[in-house]
Amino acid sequence: MTGAMHDDPILIEVTRGSLVESNHRGATAVVDADGRLLLALGDVARPIFPRSAVKALQALPLIESGAADAFGLGEPELAIACASHSGDAIHLAAVRTLLAKAGLDESLLACGAHWPISERTTRELMRAGRSPEAIHNNCSGKHAGMLAKALHLGLDPSGYERPEHGVQEEVRRIISEICGVELERAEMGIDGCSVPTFAFPLAALARGFARLASGEGLSPARAAAARRLMGACFANPVLVAGEGRLDTIIMRGLAGSVFAKGGAEGIHCAALPELGIGIAVKIDDGAKRAAETAFALLLAKLVAGADQVLAGELQGQIRNWRGLKVGELRASPALSAALAALPNPNVAAAVPAPR
Amino acid sequence: MTGAMHDDPILIEVTRGSLVESNHRGATAVVDADGRLLLALGDVARPIFPRSAVKALQALPLIESGAADAFGLGEPELAIACASHSGDAIHLAAVRTLLAKAGLDESLLACGAHWPISERTTRELMRAGRSPEAIHNNCSGKHAGMLAKALHLGLDPSGYERPEHGVQEEVRRIISEICGVELERAEMGIDGCSVPTFAFPLAALARGFARLASGEGLSPARAAAARRLMGACFANPVLVAGEGRLDTIIMRGLAGSVFAKGGAEGIHCAALPELGIGIAVKIDDGAKRAAETAFALLLAKLVAGADQVLAGELQGQIRNWRGLKVGELRASPALSAALAALPNPNVAAAVPAPR
Repeated sequence: MTGAMHDDPILIEVTRGSLVESNHRGATAVVDADGRLLLALGDVARPIFPRSAVKALQALPLIESGAADAFGLGEPELAIACASHSGDAIHLAAVRTLLAKAGLDESLLACGAHWPISERTTRELMRAGRSPEAIHNNCSGKHAGMLAKALHLGLDPSGYERPEHGVQEEVRRIISEICGVELERAEMGIDGCSVPTFAFPLAALARGFARLASGEGLSPARAAAARRLMGACFANPVLVAGEGRLDTIIMRGLAGSVFAKGGAEGIHCAALPELGIGIAVKIDDGAKRAAETAFALLLAKLVAGADQVLAGELQGQIRNWRGLKVGELRASPALSAALAALPNPNVAAAVPAPR
Repeated sequence: MTGAMHDDPILIEVTRGSLVESNHRGATAVVDADGRLLLALGDVARPIFPRSAVKALQALPLIESGAADAFGLGEPELAIACASHSGDAIHLAAVRTLLAKAGLDESLLACGAHWPISERTTRELMRAGRSPEAIHNNCSGKHAGMLAKALHLGLDPSGYERPEHGVQEEVRRIISEICGVELERAEMGIDGCSVPTFAFPLAALARGFARLASGEGLSPARAAAARRLMGACFANPVLVAGEGRLDTIIMRGLAGSVFAKGGAEGIHCAALPELGIGIAVKIDDGAKRAAETAFALLLAKLVAGADQVLAGELQGQIRNWRGLKVGELRASPALSAALAALPNPNVAAAVPAPR
């Protein structure tokens, strides 16, 4: 029921020496274009908060409302609206371009400030004796997009982050339609960046990403808007996350094949346009290290070429402060068995299917 | 068996809005001076790596060998040898004094470098365009102590971090004796700072801390050495961790009552000298946030006055980047029930027991 967590299986083991030192339980759903569950490991019916994984869904109204065209937004501005960015100069420039094209000012951003995810830029700010600002917040592009929508719809931009504001009502309606769920006010939380986040089942989240991937079950206009947003991210993978980060590595190496997006508290999702498949992972304890490893293992099994693009992530080595290998992150027996039961596109590609 | 994790109960829930967003499973053992388990929640017989929680045990040979007296080490140098320090100037000074009194040089430290835990000092290093050095490693005091021991024992300091070196053999023997366990080479891992760490049951770890607390089961010389080390930490709580960190807050507010020490991957331990009790917590997924919350809840129940010293930690509020309260860390029903069954010293103190 609401929030109760049942006994999800261990998905990821963390070893040290020859022992398992820690482990991570969780759930994962893989849904095909027809809405069928190809994989359901753990409790995929329990409501979970999708957090930043649904930023592309939160950005759809920017296109559907006509705001993107009215303000002449380019692909970098669309990509940054879907981003959990690192706060490097390239990201700040994209946010500022988005705001400038809409005639807005960054003082309107309600996301709050945090040190950039980018260590390099954090170091530069510290070296200059500066503090981070709202534009460095990894969500500032999403917020800039929401402000642009508010303006285009003739709404007061002030308070755009509040649940009752028209922009958030629209986001709620779109997520509800794409994922096929009712979003109850009782299951609302406030995200790290102060906008609402609604809890719903992991299977529905994966189904929403399958619809993003295939366009099935969406209006032609919405399917086109989703393709346009994903295309903007494929064309600007560094804007969606940042150098060295998983979603950038994936979309740089597998553009067109995998639209990938992580969220706080152990969420990771993907839309696979070529296969019409959606993926969603939630780690029960919220650990990013486990969500990313489970997600990389799933992609390596489902997507041709992903094993090479993700070779570094799949090694899962834990190194200590002197660079010695002291342990590893690896699939649990339960996850290994589930992966083995999935179709292998690398094998399928080598043996042409009779048509 | 080795490393297999059974179904430990959920100890800590992480809420957002009215839902549980994430949770943390784990085990905890509370052992009295007679070695009796007052509380055993989860699998307390499974081997776990104690990591930095046993730094005081690793520092005992420094006193027992006579090195501390031979080099004229004061309480700050003893406290820093037991520390996971923040890397502030006060910590670096204590490490350097320890090294200087032994006639050693910080170039011998084998712990590797990482940015200081202290954000303030990290910012200062970054501002100066500098990189962190081995002395900033939170374990540098422990390593300095090990180097001093090696020198005093007439051993080659080089390679002091290796499992086969006399210093590590001595540490292994002492932990084995105090906790009453065989430390098998097959259950050895390499710690973040490159010294060996041996896995053994959580119940034995709690028993070791109960013996530190009471001195029972230890030789008079070892019991005195343990009292001297804990006294050095009570006199210098900021050296053992750093400003704003849990172990410093505890030992500053509850000096004499609680010797507290955390370790990586969700470990937290305490010796309660006034009660002769030892406590050990391991969070299965390794999360520090959960280990600290569970540990604070245990102390608040067991130690008079701890609820006031730990008031901030016990609120468990999760705030977002704008400072809004969006959720909380709280005891699970299983942990709440276990806490309710423990004796309450605050109540006991209010009603004088008949003697």
